[in-house]
Amino acid sequence: SPTTLADTYRDLHERPGAMAWIGLYRPAAAQLLSAAEEFGLHELAVEDAIVAHQRPKLERYGETLFAVLRAARYLDETEEVDFGEVHVFLGRNFVLTVRHAESPDLAAVRRWVEDRPDLLKRGPEAVLYAILDSIVDDYAPVVAGLQHDIDEIENEVFLGEPNVSRRIYELGREVIEFQRAGRPLLDMLRDLSAGFDKYGVDEELRRYLRDVEDHATTVVERVDGFRQMLQNIMAVNAALVTQAQNEEMKQLTQVSLAQNEEVKKISAWAAILFAPTLIGGIYGMNFDEMPELHWVAGYPFAIALMILVCVTLYLLFKRRGWL
Amino acid sequence: SPTTLADTYRDLHERPGAMAWIGLYRPAAAQLLSAAEEFGLHELAVEDAIVAHQRPKLERYGETLFAVLRAARYLDETEEVDFGEVHVFLGRNFVLTVRHAESPDLAAVRRWVEDRPDLLKRGPEAVLYAILDSIVDDYAPVVAGLQHDIDEIENEVFLGEPNVSRRIYELGREVIEFQRAGRPLLDMLRDLSAGFDKYGVDEELRRYLRDVEDHATTVVERVDGFRQMLQNIMAVNAALVTQAQNEEMKQLTQVSLAQNEEVKKISAWAAILFAPTLIGGIYGMNFDEMPELHWVAGYPFAIALMILVCVTLYLLFKRRGWL
Amino acid sequence: SPTTLADTYRDLHERPGAMAWIGLYRPAAAQLLSAAEEFGLHELAVEDAIVAHQRPKLERYGETLFAVLRAARYLDETEEVDFGEVHVFLGRNFVLTVRHAESPDLAAVRRWVEDRPDLLKRGPEAVLYAILDSIVDDYAPVVAGLQHDIDEIENEVFLGEPNVSRRIYELGREVIEFQRAGRPLLDMLRDLSAGFDKYGVDEELRRYLRDVEDHATTVVERVDGFRQMLQNIMAVNAALVTQAQNEEMKQLTQVSLAQNEEVKKISAWAAILFAPTLIGGIYGMNFDEMPELHWVAGYPFAIALMILVCVTLYLLFKRRGWL
Amino acid sequence: SPTTLADTYRDLHERPGAMAWIGLYRPAAAQLLSAAEEFGLHELAVEDAIVAHQRPKLERYGETLFAVLRAARYLDETEEVDFGEVHVFLGRNFVLTVRHAESPDLAAVRRWVEDRPDLLKRGPEAVLYAILDSIVDDYAPVVAGLQHDIDEIENEVFLGEPNVSRRIYELGREVIEFQRAGRPLLDMLRDLSAGFDKYGVDEELRRYLRDVEDHATTVVERVDGFRQMLQNIMAVNAALVTQAQNEEMKQLTQVSLAQNEEVKKISAWAAILFAPTLIGGIYGMNFDEMPELHWVAGYPFAIALMILVCVTLYLLFKRRGWL
Amino acid sequence: SPTTLADTYRDLHERPGAMAWIGLYRPAAAQLLSAAEEFGLHELAVEDAIVAHQRPKLERYGETLFAVLRAARYLDETEEVDFGEVHVFLGRNFVLTVRHAESPDLAAVRRWVEDRPDLLKRGPEAVLYAILDSIVDDYAPVVAGLQHDIDEIENEVFLGEPNVSRRIYELGREVIEFQRAGRPLLDMLRDLSAGFDKYGVDEELRRYLRDVEDHATTVVERVDGFRQMLQNIMAVNAALVTQAQNEEMKQLTQVSLAQNEEVKKISAWAAILFAPTLIGGIYGMNFDEMPELHWVAGYPFAIALMILVCVTLYLLFKRRGWL
Repeated sequence: SPTTLADTYRDLHERPGAMAWIGLYRPAAAQLLSAAEEFGLHELAVEDAIVAHQRPKLERYGETLFAVLRAARYLDETEEVDFGEVHVFLGRNFVLTVRHAESPDLAAVRRWVEDRPDLLKRGPEAVLYAILDSIVDDYAPVVAGLQHDIDEIENEVFLGEPNVSRRIYELGREVIEFQRAGRPLLDMLRDLSAGFDKYGVDEELRRYLRDVEDHATTVVERVDGFRQMLQNIMAVNAALVTQAQNEEMKQLTQVSLAQNEEVKKISAWAAILFAPTLIGGIYGMNFDEMPELHWVAGYPFAIALMILVCVTLYLLFKRRGWL
Repeated sequence: SPTTLADTYRDLHERPGAMAWIGLYRPAAAQLLSAAEEFGLHELAVEDAIVAHQRPKLERYGETLFAVLRAARYLDETEEVDFGEVHVFLGRNFVLTVRHAESPDLAAVRRWVEDRPDLLKRGPEAVLYAILDSIVDDYAPVVAGLQHDIDEIENEVFLGEPNVSRRIYELGREVIEFQRAGRPLLDMLRDLSAGFDKYGVDEELRRYLRDVEDHATTVVERVDGFRQMLQNIMAVNAALVTQAQNEEMKQLTQVSLAQNEEVKKISAWAAILFAPTLIGGIYGMNFDEMPELHWVAGYPFAIALMILVCVTLYLLFKRRGWL
Repeated sequence: SPTTLADTYRDLHERPGAMAWIGLYRPAAAQLLSAAEEFGLHELAVEDAIVAHQRPKLERYGETLFAVLRAARYLDETEEVDFGEVHVFLGRNFVLTVRHAESPDLAAVRRWVEDRPDLLKRGPEAVLYAILDSIVDDYAPVVAGLQHDIDEIENEVFLGEPNVSRRIYELGREVIEFQRAGRPLLDMLRDLSAGFDKYGVDEELRRYLRDVEDHATTVVERVDGFRQMLQNIMAVNAALVTQAQNEEMKQLTQVSLAQNEEVKKISAWAAILFAPTLIGGIYGMNFDEMPELHWVAGYPFAIALMILVCVTLYLLFKRRGWL
Repeated sequence: SPTTLADTYRDLHERPGAMAWIGLYRPAAAQLLSAAEEFGLHELAVEDAIVAHQRPKLERYGETLFAVLRAARYLDETEEVDFGEVHVFLGRNFVLTVRHAESPDLAAVRRWVEDRPDLLKRGPEAVLYAILDSIVDDYAPVVAGLQHDIDEIENEVFLGEPNVSRRIYELGREVIEFQRAGRPLLDMLRDLSAGFDKYGVDEELRRYLRDVEDHATTVVERVDGFRQMLQNIMAVNAALVTQAQNEEMKQLTQVSLAQNEEVKKISAWAAILFAPTLIGGIYGMNFDEMPELHWVAGYPFAIALMILVCVTLYLLFKRRGWL
Repeated sequence: SPTTLADTYRDLHERPGAMAWIGLYRPAAAQLLSAAEEFGLHELAVEDAIVAHQRPKLERYGETLFAVLRAARYLDETEEVDFGEVHVFLGRNFVLTVRHAESPDLAAVRRWVEDRPDLLKRGPEAVLYAILDSIVDDYAPVVAGLQHDIDEIENEVFLGEPNVSRRIYELGREVIEFQRAGRPLLDMLRDLSAGFDKYGVDEELRRYLRDVEDHATTVVERVDGFRQMLQNIMAVNAALVTQAQNEEMKQLTQVSLAQNEEVKKISAWAAILFAPTLIGGIYGMNFDEMPELHWVAGYPFAIALMILVCVTLYLLFKRRGWL
């Protein structure tokens, strides 16, 4: 296969019936414009192909078909879906692909197509099918990665990990992003099917396309389920966290109650201990006339009085539940 | 009925007008490929049949109809919906079923079909109808199981069981899964109906199919209701749990208030008891010149003073609400 | 009118142009099968009519029309919607109704129809219209009952009734159930309209049917509004309950603060009362050499000291806000 | 213009080509039935017109068009949308309007129409347009009123007004009610447009109708936005109220902590003050043999001991953070 | 180019085949009516153009096309989307634009169009395309601004900024507003496409229009994603704020527990210190007969007793966990 664009164009002119596949990776505008001129590509499509960040779409310009496709990869470390973008121009005798990211491995698609002459002879639409098939197949690990992270998050939620809210939120954002890529693709595949019916593309290719459509639908439906599940998880997590925190507060409050109970008891005992001091104080007064002081049993009487006061207070406090 | 594939093929060739039903259970790729070659099955369908985890779908390859169906069983112990997958190839004179799980009891379907020659003579579509009918009928116990668990969960929620959040969440996940199986089936049944209209399948079979469609719609609508109900339950449960926890906290706080009230009273009584000690201390001082000590009524006066102080404090504290 | 099925059949054969209305209430299978044989009813429809719990639907079997309808009653005590099911077979010269519950008062419908020969002469579809009209009219009190309960619930929510959550949830479940009955009926009415257009049923009957459709739509839309309103009520209730509980906790906490303030004051007063005791203790010591004891003004000096200490502490505590 | 119905009928018969507009306000059934007989109105439509609470709809009975319309007014004091209902019968030479509420000012519509003979000559549909236009124009102040109340509610929410929940809920209910009136009107306008296309109504009138449709769509879309906004406000309000309440609890708890700190300090100081009393008590004992009592420096020694104990305790408590 | 309307009209009459672009900015009604008369504009369209606040729409009046378009700008300081409104009348030989706000820079559009004669020669629809393209292109910075603010809000939420609720709510309101502008535009573009197909506008222009439609769809889908994301953020924020507040309360409660523990210890130590005072009080009593007072070891015995009591209490309190 030729290595410069000029060689390719010459080759193509010299060999009628041949078909060229030109793959550009983040091309300079000049490079793309040269190809545009050679193959008569439409200005609007070329503009779109220079600027990335397009929505998956399909446009037919005369004999040329222009498709914007979005590939996806799952970066497991950061739990992010990384989107790539490929623009495909399909003409009678050429396929021009413009990649804006590394992700869809078009070289592999090319090898696969070249091994299948039966497919290739069905025309450039077959190449488009092969690229679409590869892109949709690449969605599977993304879905698996999301599923895996959701499973992990579920475990974290039910184990009470504290910072899972953020993870749920961020995965939710990735899921929204992925849906925004997947749904237009599905619409595009349906339009393409309708177009194939209208333009009489052969039945076999239509079947292949429906197969891709089925896979894409599976992806979109699962991702839709993920969104619902993440919303449920978010709600469950909020409920469980509040519940756990309230439970902790309850336990702390119970500790506080036990503590207060002890303070109460200490206070009550202190009061009991204190009462006999009063009697000691009375009989320690220095009045001239205190008859009890001269009783023979005065001292034992005072001691008995002290004990009596203590016991009385004890019983009183006990009855009031202060001890 | 013959027992090896080769026998079956020979039988089929020898007896024109006969129809073979070949049932494979998790076949080796080779086995499936042999059947594919014999009956001229389409490569894409064969690929799908080897790998499971397809979406219910229907594809017409020339004279062969290929259907992916998903059966469901409810495992009550784990509250999980267990999905099985059957791939059905329908040709003029053969039915090839590839099962990837035990659940749809195809042997029973076969017996049922064999008992109904009126049905069988309507062609292979009748067999497809019978399988579909069996699968949709098998959804009924799943729906009943889900309903039963929802009823149980409702009871648990209103009885205040603590760990019901997780159960609600997990049942919700099963419901989402089940919806993901049921809705495409409904779409497929509608497509099939449309196809029957287009290909002029006989009216009687169409009626049978509409009957299956009605049952499938009932299932899908009920499961949809389950999803709504589980969301409501989740919300009610979160509200009730918070409410119950707040109520508990309120009661604990009221206990704490009662406790503090007691501590306050003990402190106040201690202060009252303490006051006369001061008087005792004063008249226990050893000054040379303390006139009261020499009064005849000095001692009763001191005691009276003590009582007066106590009563005054008592009234003061009472008025302030400290007792 | 004849009283046994056999009589009816004979009558019908004897009087061509006559039309029989046979009403069965939870018939034995045998009874139904006899009627099925007589009128040539389709096996699938008969199966459906034996088992209840069907979805509202309409199926045309040759000349016979088969309809499954669901009537509803509102049980105000339990706030439940009670569903009845009627299966209607309409043929050229017969109407066969199979009821599985008491609710739709078919006798009244029959009397109404018999009073309107102009309607009856439009054929069996007129009878179907009359039954549909009666069923949809019976939805009105259900809607009114639901509205009434929602109004009550609103009042309860804003009055702060404690157990309204459960009532909201359960009414919500009834609303979901009712929607599950109402929406398929609406679809059925639309299909029936379409069928009437296709089969050229007379314009007048079509108008009557559209009238029923309008009423059914009003019901379905109002019930849809109920669902939204109940969700809003649920959210408001959760918010208000939490708010009220938090308010209560705040008040309890304020009570606790006031209580603590008192404890603090009691403690401070106790400390103030206590200080002079120290002086009393000092001058109650029995040392040989304590010059103050022999001062003439020793005793007043000690009392003054006591007062000074108290005032000092009082001012100190006051400044620190402890009193 | 004639004042009794009978006069009107006679006028109409005498002047072919004339057109009568009869406006009834909550007519007695008899009055309506007389008009029905005169103009050959359909029984179903008349029944609908007697009973109010219909859904906006349009029905064509032969040459007569029957429309149910709902007008709306905003009662700002109660923040309620007040619905009126007009039933319009349109025939070749008459317009019969039946109002069930005061709101749509049909007299004004009539004056407007009479000033526009170019419009009137396009037939009775022009009158229907004028009524529709007036009703949809009257929706504008309702929308403005709702918007105004939503703005007020937003302010209240962010200012922390306590009882805004109820207002949000009730406005939400009005919005749901209004949507229930507006959406069927939109459907009706679309049906009417389709009917105009089908019945070849002149292009100019169709344009007028599309203009009304545009205005109605604007109303419905804004009200839809209101519903979303009210849900958001409800959520924000619940969050903010909880947040504010939690903040208050936090502040109360901080007050409580400060209070407890003071109690702790008072207790600690009391303990320090108390310690020297013990020494006073020891040297106040009356034992015969207490050598310290006879020391010359006994008294200063005791005082020093007291000071030492106080300082020691002070340092100890300080180190432990109790002071 | 002429500067007064009258000049323009004259120029236009003098030069057949010429095309005039008249741009009015908030015109007086008279000015607009003069133009309306000159170009035969339809009354309804002129009425709409006088009053702003229309919904994006498209109406064909004979040979004149009337479009209402809404431009948007993002005011970053206030985080508000500022909407402008342009009304465009397109005739055979004129374009009349009526602006009600500054935002769509029509002068730039005009310059761009004048540089592209190939486009201009495709007729006035090309001008409409150019305006649409410019308006939709201007949506891009709005989307970017919203995205940027959402990113900021996410950071604030996860950093725990306190007043982010209001910002989320208000951005949500802007998003709802923007959706209300964007969706009808999309509908309008689809209607316009359909109209172009019907009226046989040339393929190239249709392609341009589809390009605008694609960009508008991207905008609407992203804004839809914003709405979902803001709802998620709102929920996450409410959860995180509650969580953080609960956490704070827990910490405050733990501080309180530590404090109470200290109070308990101080109380317990006070009680221990107090106990020996009782013994001091006993032996300070003045009874005549107190044998211990005369013991030689009386004093050491009392001291020992004091120590014993302290140690006993200490051990007791220790065992009970009061120290």
